Amino acid sequence: KLLNKSTLLNQTNRIVFNSNVVFGGNTSSVLYGGSNRNFGSKGKISEYSHKAKSALYHRGSTLYTNTTRDELIKMEKEFVPPQRYEPKTISDKIARKSVQFLRKFSNLFFREKYIHYAIVLETVAAVPGLVGSALLHLRSLRTMERNNWIKILMDEAENERMHLFTFIELSKPTLIERAMVAVAQGIYFNIFFAFYMLTPKTAHRFTGYLEEEALITYNNFLKDLDEGKVPNFSVNTPAPQLAIDYWGLPADATLRDCILVIRQDENDHRAVNHEISNRISKNNTDPIDL
Amino acid sequence: KLLNKSTLLNQTNRIVFNSNVVFGGNTSSVLYGGSNRNFGSKGKISEYSHKAKSALYHRGSTLYTNTTRDELIKMEKEFVPPQRYEPKTISDKIARKSVQFLRKFSNLFFREKYIHYAIVLETVAAVPGLVGSALLHLRSLRTMERNNWIKILMDEAENERMHLFTFIELSKPTLIERAMVAVAQGIYFNIFFAFYMLTPKTAHRFTGYLEEEALITYNNFLKDLDEGKVPNFSVNTPAPQLAIDYWGLPADATLRDCILVIRQDENDHRAVNHEISNRISKNNTDPIDL
Ligand SMILES: [Fe+2]
Ligand SMILES: [Fe+2]
Ligand SMILES: [Fe+2]
Ligand SMILES: [Fe+2]
Repeated sequence: KLLNKSTLLNQTNRIVFNSNVVFGGNTSSVLYGGSNRNFGSKGKISEYSHKAKSALYHRGSTLYTNTTRDELIKMEKEFVPPQRYEPKTISDKIARKSVQFLRKFSNLFFREKYIHYAIVLETVAAVPGLVGSALLHLRSLRTMERNNWIKILMDEAENERMHLFTFIELSKPTLIERAMVAVAQGIYFNIFFAFYMLTPKTAHRFTGYLEEEALITYNNFLKDLDEGKVPNFSVNTPAPQLAIDYWGLPADATLRDCILVIRQDENDHRAVNHEISNRISKNNTDPIDL
Repeated sequence: KLLNKSTLLNQTNRIVFNSNVVFGGNTSSVLYGGSNRNFGSKGKISEYSHKAKSALYHRGSTLYTNTTRDELIKMEKEFVPPQRYEPKTISDKIARKSVQFLRKFSNLFFREKYIHYAIVLETVAAVPGLVGSALLHLRSLRTMERNNWIKILMDEAENERMHLFTFIELSKPTLIERAMVAVAQGIYFNIFFAFYMLTPKTAHRFTGYLEEEALITYNNFLKDLDEGKVPNFSVNTPAPQLAIDYWGLPADATLRDCILVIRQDENDHRAVNHEISNRISKNNTDPIDL
């Protein structure tokens, strides 16, 4: 019996995966390198055929793995305008101010060059998830206490890297942008690392605000794309193949569709990071409910 | 139409996930915190219902997510005795010698206290995947070149952490072991980090050899458990719930079953790390075929 999504949704309030349930999604090809993947037949370096069933192992890290046209339409219709977390503490305010400063600075530099802005933005966005998950992983090993945030943060880092490569397929970064990114990483990674060690609560708040800005950027991108204001790109620009594979987009997907799923990813990151920040002082490391 | 595993295996040589295919696996509960997970109904911090379909998002990181009794039997029967990679270069030999030294040293300390040995072993094993994936992730952002090894290494780290917590459920580490682990991490993490920056090729070779030793340890564990030689534990010791959830083991699973799937995980890590080491100088970052 084939269960479709709405059955899954409505059948019970709790979905348990101890019976076979159906997942769609054209997720494996990009992460595992294109069309010649051969899950199930004898592997090159392994002999064990049992693996075939878990071809989703090491699959992508986005929630949106089989995003049909219908789902894209639903996604756009149901999108909730970026929610802004009202700063409550002094460190919240510092976190927000820093993000606002970075925002103004980068706006000056990029203006309407959205794709180039997005490339730089994503190389920056891919750092906090890595730093957070790495430090929490090491702490979990050291203290021998489980922590349910590590996986979601690792996946956030992977997810941001896929955003980056989606845009790189659309526009090769200029030499100056590449240099900027390389230099920025050296400084930013180390600062964020120290920052996270010092105050993970504020580091996650900072990331939450960064994600709010990313949401606004992708909102504006979408609006300007629809109004034909983005040089070199239009609503008809086809999506790169890797994006089609990663998010399971329809074959005729466009750049516009990519922005929809990326914006949705950012919205998840925003929620996850603000929630971790809220919970961190309570030492409540329960899983994050997305 | 429900496709079972053998259909998936035999139907075509290439499995494409753009149509609905069936995956089993009781994978979600442990990673997302036990039995009250509520995928699909309105989330606490998110409003978007589309997510229900991807409940495997942020799921576990092992290949063996729905390991029925039949599959455990098959797994044990088809297990290939640990393959040893013959050192070819001087650095291979150094990597092997270092691992052999660590092995002898820890054997002296632990003798037949397998669970305690495993706890310390796993806190050590959870470092290379993290270091490798973190450094490759940062390099990928910096150079803007995709790298298919990052995800599999992140997942290796997560996977090792789950091994650790499986054993921690069975035997609380002693104070001296906890102290040992904390001190060891401070030293070992930094050494391995520098080691990986210097020569990733040898670092992966080292990890490959470490996994070979882990395989032998779990082989011996299995043998001694079957012969009733492991104090406090027997073939009837029940598996911890988190292990049942993570690997999708049958409800009556035992410690013995856990060792079977853990050994299989280690075998994958061995293959992955030796393969990366082989390929690293060729700069071939294609996905690893498991
Ligand atoms: Fe992003
Ligand atoms: Fe993000
Ligand atoms: Fe392990
Ligand atoms: Fe391992």
